[in-house]
Amino acid sequence: MTIRYPNGNQFHEQPTSSGTHNDSINFSNRGMTLEDEINKSNQYYLREGIAVIHKKPTPIQIVSVDYPKRSAARIKEAYFRRASTTDYNGVYRGKYVDFDAKETKNKQSFPLKNFHEHQVEHMRQCLSQQGICFAIIKFMSDQAVYVLKATDLIAYWDAQRTGGRKSIPRKVIEQEGFLIQYRINPLLPYLQAVDSFIE
Amino acid sequence: MTIRYPNGNQFHEQPTSSGTHNDSINFSNRGMTLEDEINKSNQYYLREGIAVIHKKPTPIQIVSVDYPKRSAARIKEAYFRRASTTDYNGVYRGKYVDFDAKETKNKQSFPLKNFHEHQVEHMRQCLSQQGICFAIIKFMSDQAVYVLKATDLIAYWDAQRTGGRKSIPRKVIEQEGFLIQYRINPLLPYLQAVDSFIE
Repeated sequence: MTIRYPNGNQFHEQPTSSGTHNDSINFSNRGMTLEDEINKSNQYYLREGIAVIHKKPTPIQIVSVDYPKRSAARIKEAYFRRASTTDYNGVYRGKYVDFDAKETKNKQSFPLKNFHEHQVEHMRQCLSQQGICFAIIKFMSDQAVYVLKATDLIAYWDAQRTGGRKSIPRKVIEQEGFLIQYRINPLLPYLQAVDSFIE
Repeated sequence: MTIRYPNGNQFHEQPTSSGTHNDSINFSNRGMTLEDEINKSNQYYLREGIAVIHKKPTPIQIVSVDYPKRSAARIKEAYFRRASTTDYNGVYRGKYVDFDAKETKNKQSFPLKNFHEHQVEHMRQCLSQQGICFAIIKFMSDQAVYVLKATDLIAYWDAQRTGGRKSIPRKVIEQEGFLIQYRINPLLPYLQAVDSFIE
């Protein structure tokens, strides 16, 4: 349930200032990244036995490690590597679920450069194994979050290579995608979209 | 197909010494860890369009990062974190597949201390979502590799808590598990076991 002001802006509950801060009824997402919002939703899905979906750790190339006596190994030099898959996967209702999450400041379209070739290739591979693949796209200007099927994303990705546009128009995302309304718990009930894909 | 000497030891093909080293017919696994063997098998499964299964990156807690001009961000201080899930997951024949791989130098049993509570808990959660969960266990003494269903592992795990033994007897693994014979490609055809679970 999303609460909106008369002008259409989304209402965000004030963080409680009392000492007994109740996390479960505070659905303010100000300052949270989309990743935080999804992680929080996944924690809810896990706790309630609804789905087991985790973000994969960031891939790191480790160059040098110290092993001090009596304390934890300390990584002294390492570099970020580019992920060869999407960031999230798991299992829901017996189905393999795989997705990536991207925010954009653009208002009228979603730039394809937010994705890497490897990630799109990974989605193709998962689709061919009957996995459920999609992107969660957030337009930061008005906090609108959509689930877009990987097949729709791939169609634009492939068209781009043959001279097509470098972004997906927001109107297409609104028409083809699934709008996710912020709720209390889970914060982003994106598995509603997966339900619609399964049924 | 495993080739064995008359004394039962496994035959390992000599690495080719010619300049045109053909990786696809070299199935020597000397010096490879079980992780290497599984990664190599997963690469084959991926390349052939059979399954999409990846090892998750090692989780790292990053403390300090340098952002030098004109070069890649350098992680200066970080620590290894304990994984809250198993190491491998993916999709095969429309099914969610989730497992961990462990080697033991023990000859007669597999010590349960190779697993952490979090990993076993994760397996329970995946099973409740109808995921296919198991452990790949390698006895290093004779290079025998078994796929053991998570349900079997969990039965021993739970019994251990109420005073049961701290390891799974090898005989039980031989009886309940699925022996994986080394092959050329994939090196470890462990999805054979998954086939038997699905059917």
